[in-house]
Amino acid sequence: MEVNTQLTQPITGFPEWLPAERLLEVRMIDTIREVYECYGFTPIETPAVEKNESLQSKGEINKQIYSLYRPNVPAEVDKETGLSLHFDLTVPLARYVAQHYGKLVFPFRRYQIQKVWRGERAQKGRFREFYQCDIDIIGEGSLDLLADAEMPLIIYEVFKALDIGQFVIRISNRKILQGLLHHWKVNGEQAEETLRAIDRLPKLKGGWQELQAWLTDELGLEGGICNALHQLLMEEETHASPLEKLRRMNVPDEIFQTGIAELQTVLESAESLNLPQGILETDLSITRGLDYYTGTVYETFLVGYEKVLGSICSGGRYDNLASHFIDRTLPGVGISIGLSRLFSTLLERGLLTPAAHTPAQVMVTIPDRRYLQKSFQVAGSLREAGFKVELFAQDSKHDRQLKAAVRKGIPFAVIPWPDRMEKEQSVEVRNLLDGHREVVPLERLAGFLHNIMGQGCSRPIHQK
Amino acid sequence: MEVNTQLTQPITGFPEWLPAERLLEVRMIDTIREVYECYGFTPIETPAVEKNESLQSKGEINKQIYSLYRPNVPAEVDKETGLSLHFDLTVPLARYVAQHYGKLVFPFRRYQIQKVWRGERAQKGRFREFYQCDIDIIGEGSLDLLADAEMPLIIYEVFKALDIGQFVIRISNRKILQGLLHHWKVNGEQAEETLRAIDRLPKLKGGWQELQAWLTDELGLEGGICNALHQLLMEEETHASPLEKLRRMNVPDEIFQTGIAELQTVLESAESLNLPQGILETDLSITRGLDYYTGTVYETFLVGYEKVLGSICSGGRYDNLASHFIDRTLPGVGISIGLSRLFSTLLERGLLTPAAHTPAQVMVTIPDRRYLQKSFQVAGSLREAGFKVELFAQDSKHDRQLKAAVRKGIPFAVIPWPDRMEKEQSVEVRNLLDGHREVVPLERLAGFLHNIMGQGCSRPIHQK
Repeated sequence: MEVNTQLTQPITGFPEWLPAERLLEVRMIDTIREVYECYGFTPIETPAVEKNESLQSKGEINKQIYSLYRPNVPAEVDKETGLSLHFDLTVPLARYVAQHYGKLVFPFRRYQIQKVWRGERAQKGRFREFYQCDIDIIGEGSLDLLADAEMPLIIYEVFKALDIGQFVIRISNRKILQGLLHHWKVNGEQAEETLRAIDRLPKLKGGWQELQAWLTDELGLEGGICNALHQLLMEEETHASPLEKLRRMNVPDEIFQTGIAELQTVLESAESLNLPQGILETDLSITRGLDYYTGTVYETFLVGYEKVLGSICSGGRYDNLASHFIDRTLPGVGISIGLSRLFSTLLERGLLTPAAHTPAQVMVTIPDRRYLQKSFQVAGSLREAGFKVELFAQDSKHDRQLKAAVRKGIPFAVIPWPDRMEKEQSVEVRNLLDGHREVVPLERLAGFLHNIMGQGCSRPIHQK
Repeated sequence: MEVNTQLTQPITGFPEWLPAERLLEVRMIDTIREVYECYGFTPIETPAVEKNESLQSKGEINKQIYSLYRPNVPAEVDKETGLSLHFDLTVPLARYVAQHYGKLVFPFRRYQIQKVWRGERAQKGRFREFYQCDIDIIGEGSLDLLADAEMPLIIYEVFKALDIGQFVIRISNRKILQGLLHHWKVNGEQAEETLRAIDRLPKLKGGWQELQAWLTDELGLEGGICNALHQLLMEEETHASPLEKLRRMNVPDEIFQTGIAELQTVLESAESLNLPQGILETDLSITRGLDYYTGTVYETFLVGYEKVLGSICSGGRYDNLASHFIDRTLPGVGISIGLSRLFSTLLERGLLTPAAHTPAQVMVTIPDRRYLQKSFQVAGSLREAGFKVELFAQDSKHDRQLKAAVRKGIPFAVIPWPDRMEKEQSVEVRNLLDGHREVVPLERLAGFLHNIMGQGCSRPIHQK
C-alpha cells in the first residue's frame, strides 16, 4: 500500500480525531449545550470571519490572525479580502450585539460553541484551531450582579454533567487589586503589568519571592505596596473569611471598597443558589490577564490537574461589551470553556477513554442475501423504537459482519436467521462484549433491548 | 444612538441569523444528525483547512479557494501558510480516510456536518460560507449496491423528520448515459460536456430544442445520438417502466447494460426497504455535473419548489474516493444536504417561521428581591425536572420581567409571589400566549407544566 505521506501528514495545531474520539467530543459538546439551554441561553453563530477593522479592536494579538486571500483571483491578491478568521468569540459577539441591537431582547443571554483560529507557534497543547464554548449575559445600561452569581452555578452544572472529576471555581473581583494599586498610586500601564504578573504567580517557580523581585526591580514598585500585596495574596487568616481580611486591611480607596462590596453581593447571591460546599472559593490572586474584565472574575480548576490543564473555564464581568461598535453601554458577564485543550488533555491522561467508533447500538446482520428484506424490516422497526442501528451493507460472509460490529464497538448484534424468522418469528440477539446469545421473539425485541441497555437506550459513550 | 456602520455592515455571502432563526437552524441540524446516527453513521470532523496540494486534486474550482496568510508575521507573508479553507467535505473525507486508513473499520460510515467556504461572486442565494450535511459509506475494494439503495431511505427519513413539505427523490445511473454516448463514439471531453449540458436541461428556457441545437451546432454531435438522447430523456412510454424502455432501446454497449443492471438492483433493493410509493422516481436526465460520480446518482426536490430550490439533497456513487492520497481502491456512495441554502429559502418563502428567540420554556420571575432564593429554588427544581428555564437576572420591575419573557417568546411564566409561597407553597403559572393564569402547588408544578406543554416538554420551535 502506498500513501502520499506528503498530503496525509497531519497539520500541526489543527486537531483531528478518529471516530471514537470525535463521538466523545460531540457528546461533550451536547452536554455543555444542554446545560446552557437549560439556563435559557440561546444559540447564536457568527461567521468564521470578521472584517479586519473589527478584529483590530483587540490589537494585542494581531500577530496570531489568519487573514484570507484568493490566490487565483489576481485582482484581489493585492487587495486581499479584508477578512480574517476570528480568534475568539468575544469580538464577534460585540459586533453581533451592536449590529442587531434593535432586534435583541435584553438582558441578552447567548451561547456560542464554535471553533476559533490562532496562528500561534506550534506547541504541545497549543492549538491553532480549537473549540470555545461561551456564554454571556449582556445588559442594557446596567446588569444586575445576580448575573455574576449565576455563572458559578452554570459552571457547576456543566462540570457535574461532564462527569470528569472534582473541580473548584475560584472567584475574585478585579476592582480589589485595582483599588489597592490605585491607593498606592500604581496606575495605567504599571498597574496593568502588575495585574498580569500576579496572574502568572501560580506558574512562577520562585513563587512570591520571584514576583516581588520582579515588581520592585523591573517595575519599580515600592515596598509598601508589595507588603500590601503580600498580605492580600499570601497571608491566610485562619479565623477570618477573605472578605473580613479585606475589610481589616483598611484601605480607604473607593474602587477597593466597591470591589469588596461586589464580591460580597455575588458570594451571598451564589450562596442562596445552593451551590454545594467547597465548589466556590474566593481567591484574590485571580486577575485574568486581560484588562477587558472590570469586576467579578472566575477560573475553574480540575482538582489534581491544576498545573496540567490550567483553568478549564474562565471569565468575568466587563463594563462595556461593544463600545468599539455602538454608542451604548452594554455591560456583561460571561464564561468560556476551552474545550479542545480540555478534551485532548483528558484523553491524553486517560481520564476519558472512548468506548465506540460509532453511535450505533445494534448491528442487524444479513445472514442470507435472499432474505434481505427481513433484515431491513428488523432494522427499521428498531429505529422506530428509537435505537441506532447499523446494517452491514456489504455482501460478505456473516462472520465478517459480526467482526466489523465488534471492531466498531457496537454492543449488540441482532441476527435474523431465516429459519427462525419463518418458523417462530424470532431473532438471535448476541451480546458482542461477553458473547451471550439469546433467542428473542420479534414482538419483544425492542423491549428486550431497552431492558438490557438501560433506560433511554443510552449506553456509555466513554469509559472512565 | 450611534453605530459604527462601517463595522456592522453585514459581509455579503456570510449568512448570520438572529437568535430565533439560529435556534431553528440548530434544531434542523439536530434532526438531520439524529437520523444519520440512527443509521449508524459516525461523526467525524476535519479541520477548516487543508493543504493547498490536497485541495488542488479538484482543480476546477480553484478560483473559489480562500487561502490563509498571517499578515503580521513578515516571514510568512511571502511563503503563506500553505493552507486554504475547504470548499467541500469530500476532499477532506478522502484525505481523512487515506490518513487514518489503518484505524478505520470498513465499510466506513461517516457523517460530517460542517461549514465550507467558497470565494464566489456575491449573488442572491449564493453563500460564501455555508453548511453541508454529508454522509458517505466507503467500502474497501468493493461496496455492495445495497449501500446505494440505503441512501434514498435515509433521505426519506431526513426530510420526513424535517417536516418541510412533500418531496421526491430522483434516481438514475450515470453509466446509462455514458454507455449511450460511448455507443455513439462520443467520448472524453465531448462526453463530459454533453453530460453537463443534460444536467442543465431543466434550467434551459428553450428545453430540448435548445439543448439539441447546442449539442449539434456547438458540440458537433450527430443526429443519431440526438435521437437516442431524445428517446431516453424525453419520451415517456405510458405502459412501460423506465427500465423496460431502456431495454427496448437495444443498445448493446456494455457500460449501458451495466448501468441498467445496477439501476435495477438498486431499485429492487430500495423497494424491499419499504419506501412509500412516489418517493423514489427514476429520472434518466439526472447526471450530476461532476464526473466524480460513476454510477447511481440522486437528486431530491421539494414538490412545488423545484425551480426555486433546485436539488436539496444530491449525491451518488463513485469508484474511488481517495486515489489521489492512497494506493487503495475505496469505492463509496454518499449524499449531501446544502443546508444553508435550503434553510434560508424556507425562511424567505415563509415555509418556516421561527417561534422563539430562546430555548427557554419557562421564565421564573423575581417578584421581590428579598425572596430571591425562592425564585432560584423554583427554577432549580424545574431544571431538574428537565425544563429549560430563564431567570430574569436584572433588578427591575416585575412587569418588565414579564414583558421580556413575552418578547423572547417564552410560553410560560412562573411567578413565586412571596405570600403565596409562604402561606400555601404555591406559585402562579401564567400562559404568556393567551394570558391564562392558574395557581399551582409547588409539588405539582413540574407535572402541571409537563401536561400543558405536551409529552417530553417539547414545544414547537417553528410554526408552519
